[in-house]
Amino acid sequence: MNRKRVVIIGGGFGGLNAAKQFRKNNFEIIIIDKTNHHLFQPLLYQVATAALSPGDIAVPIRSVFRGKKNIEVIMSEVLSVNKNESYVQLEDRRIYFDYLIMSPGSSHSYFGKNEWEKYAPGLKTLNDALSVRENILSSFEEAEIEEDKNKRDEYLTFVIIGGGPTGVEMAGAIAEIARQTMLKDFRNIKPQETKIFLIEAGARILTAYSGHLSAIAKSDLEKMGVKVMTDAMVTEVSTNGVTAGGTMIKTKNIIWAAGNEASPLLKSLGADLDRAGRVLVENDLSIKDYPNIFVIGDAANIKNQNGELLPGIAPVAIQQGKYAARIIEREIPKGNREPFSYFDKGTMATIGKAKAVAMIRRFEFSQGIAWFLWTFVHIFFLITFRNRFRVMGEWILYYFTSRRGVRLITRRARK
Amino acid sequence: MNRKRVVIIGGGFGGLNAAKQFRKNNFEIIIIDKTNHHLFQPLLYQVATAALSPGDIAVPIRSVFRGKKNIEVIMSEVLSVNKNESYVQLEDRRIYFDYLIMSPGSSHSYFGKNEWEKYAPGLKTLNDALSVRENILSSFEEAEIEEDKNKRDEYLTFVIIGGGPTGVEMAGAIAEIARQTMLKDFRNIKPQETKIFLIEAGARILTAYSGHLSAIAKSDLEKMGVKVMTDAMVTEVSTNGVTAGGTMIKTKNIIWAAGNEASPLLKSLGADLDRAGRVLVENDLSIKDYPNIFVIGDAANIKNQNGELLPGIAPVAIQQGKYAARIIEREIPKGNREPFSYFDKGTMATIGKAKAVAMIRRFEFSQGIAWFLWTFVHIFFLITFRNRFRVMGEWILYYFTSRRGVRLITRRARK
Repeated sequence: MNRKRVVIIGGGFGGLNAAKQFRKNNFEIIIIDKTNHHLFQPLLYQVATAALSPGDIAVPIRSVFRGKKNIEVIMSEVLSVNKNESYVQLEDRRIYFDYLIMSPGSSHSYFGKNEWEKYAPGLKTLNDALSVRENILSSFEEAEIEEDKNKRDEYLTFVIIGGGPTGVEMAGAIAEIARQTMLKDFRNIKPQETKIFLIEAGARILTAYSGHLSAIAKSDLEKMGVKVMTDAMVTEVSTNGVTAGGTMIKTKNIIWAAGNEASPLLKSLGADLDRAGRVLVENDLSIKDYPNIFVIGDAANIKNQNGELLPGIAPVAIQQGKYAARIIEREIPKGNREPFSYFDKGTMATIGKAKAVAMIRRFEFSQGIAWFLWTFVHIFFLITFRNRFRVMGEWILYYFTSRRGVRLITRRARK
Repeated sequence: MNRKRVVIIGGGFGGLNAAKQFRKNNFEIIIIDKTNHHLFQPLLYQVATAALSPGDIAVPIRSVFRGKKNIEVIMSEVLSVNKNESYVQLEDRRIYFDYLIMSPGSSHSYFGKNEWEKYAPGLKTLNDALSVRENILSSFEEAEIEEDKNKRDEYLTFVIIGGGPTGVEMAGAIAEIARQTMLKDFRNIKPQETKIFLIEAGARILTAYSGHLSAIAKSDLEKMGVKVMTDAMVTEVSTNGVTAGGTMIKTKNIIWAAGNEASPLLKSLGADLDRAGRVLVENDLSIKDYPNIFVIGDAANIKNQNGELLPGIAPVAIQQGKYAARIIEREIPKGNREPFSYFDKGTMATIGKAKAVAMIRRFEFSQGIAWFLWTFVHIFFLITFRNRFRVMGEWILYYFTSRRGVRLITRRARK
């Protein structure tokens, strides 16, 4: 039986949902991911701020396809794609494909200054989140026993670079930690001693939202004690601290949440890329001249009917994954394919709005609609029942105790 | 107000329960621990085998004493104790005490061959458990794509050194993973390919239990596919594998669960030590000539009325912690102190038996009494409600799905 083979790169929202479409056994599916798990990235900042555990927001990809004999999972990095000879190159082998769906995601951009990464780690993987958590908690521990006020200030100063949703969430969460959670845990450090900076190079934070929401978010963050610096480009990052907008901030805690650049793997496609490295796909999400190769998720540059670039968010990746998989499953030839059309069931606005409202109404977090909406929207998108059960559990406990549940330092890395 | 100061070294069962005794505000308590959390060690092997998350079995020490103004927590290592001048030496400071309770625990002994540790890590801390988990899961991933049968065998061979409870639990858990959990997750590796060895230098495993239980445990492990090697001393450990009892086993997976040696910190006391480095304490748990210094938990060598050495288990440490704290709180002079007497409410036998029965009756795990007994005994000893909630949740899910809940590889460390 010579089944055709579909290789899917990436076990995120796009890749996972593409694989799930292949219900019948007439295709051989191989999913390749650098990690062994599917990660719910929107909640990663909660692992970084000790509110959730990795197991709450991640599930082994194998689990999702347990028992599905036609789906194989390989944990490996893909080094390049050879579109002419139809194979993907791994470290020590090639895997040939009849169809390829690329959903490799994106990583942070340090705008050319990659040496900054060691002082200002990003927040894209579970490993990142655990490192950030470790650093935050260790900083408080160091500050607790540090008698030199200057050194103590450096431990209690937190700088988040990037005013998008991730940066705003992190800044808000750290402010909460400093002012609520930690208050009774420590004896020598006072919440007022904690300084939190959110640095944005552009004119305002949350540029993807309306100016109105943006202003409310800024105001709420400031009420929580976060200093929001806009029009402040970062010019220097070192072990001593950050220089942005001409100001030098001494700190031991820098988190990078700025800039998205698409996976460098895409370069090997030899296709047209935009400035952020995303592939300019055709209206059926395939690349020019190769109707058997699709690029989806935030690795793809595609516009909606209004000519606006579709954002790199989960619902878009999910629909694209299903779309590409359906074309493959029915083996629809290029000429007969309906163009991809993102069906915005108001989801995007809903998530965006709920998230924005929840983010900015942190003080009123408990108040009815915003909280429930945000909670359930996130839980709805979590992939497994187990994850939903755990996250609901953690949030319920947090709601009643105001205490983040996972304030653990497990690695011995000290500053 | 010149309160007396009690320094407690170690936030484990002994130290934590000692600190909890000081209800009134008339003493200043300082707890010092190398980590920031209290760890429920009996369940550590479940983190190592991806059944529980760190957050399920650990709680920040600060959480336990939240809001208790007279209790301070310091995350630091104690380098030595100066009993004459009554202070403990940290890296960069001294802390003077009026009373000292030492509960530093124990670590694995490599019987002088400390270079073996990098090939055969132990299982004492959360960091250990996460490393072990990472290695086990990564080994399965490597085996899944390895075409060379010899190399694949090395990835699928697991050697556990040490036939005590930890070793037996690990061996049993890995056998379960190989034969049940992983079965449907992987396509290319077969459970029969997995080889598990439990190596014990002595004549039988579980020497702390009766010969009868020991024999049942061995038989059950063998039914699960574990090869139990007794009278097999380990003579060589390297990156290639293990040599024990004259046999060379090629493996990439070695876990060290043998030998306990008390914390080296105890040497600085200049007190009499037994062969395992434990302090030979007086019958009031204090050290000779220094009635203000107590050593408890598995760092102490003390006998019961029958002249038997009290084992280094949780209920003993808990009672000793409370005992020492009560003496201090009432400032009972040496001559008036009742000797410490371990009140075995059948707990030890109960836990031991339930644990032994549950361990060895793994196939009948679901069968009534043993399972419930074991479950509730463990949950009872977990320190916080949050932990109990999570562990119950995980076990209920595991019971229904037969799937370990935290099969995540988060670090990028590959073999």
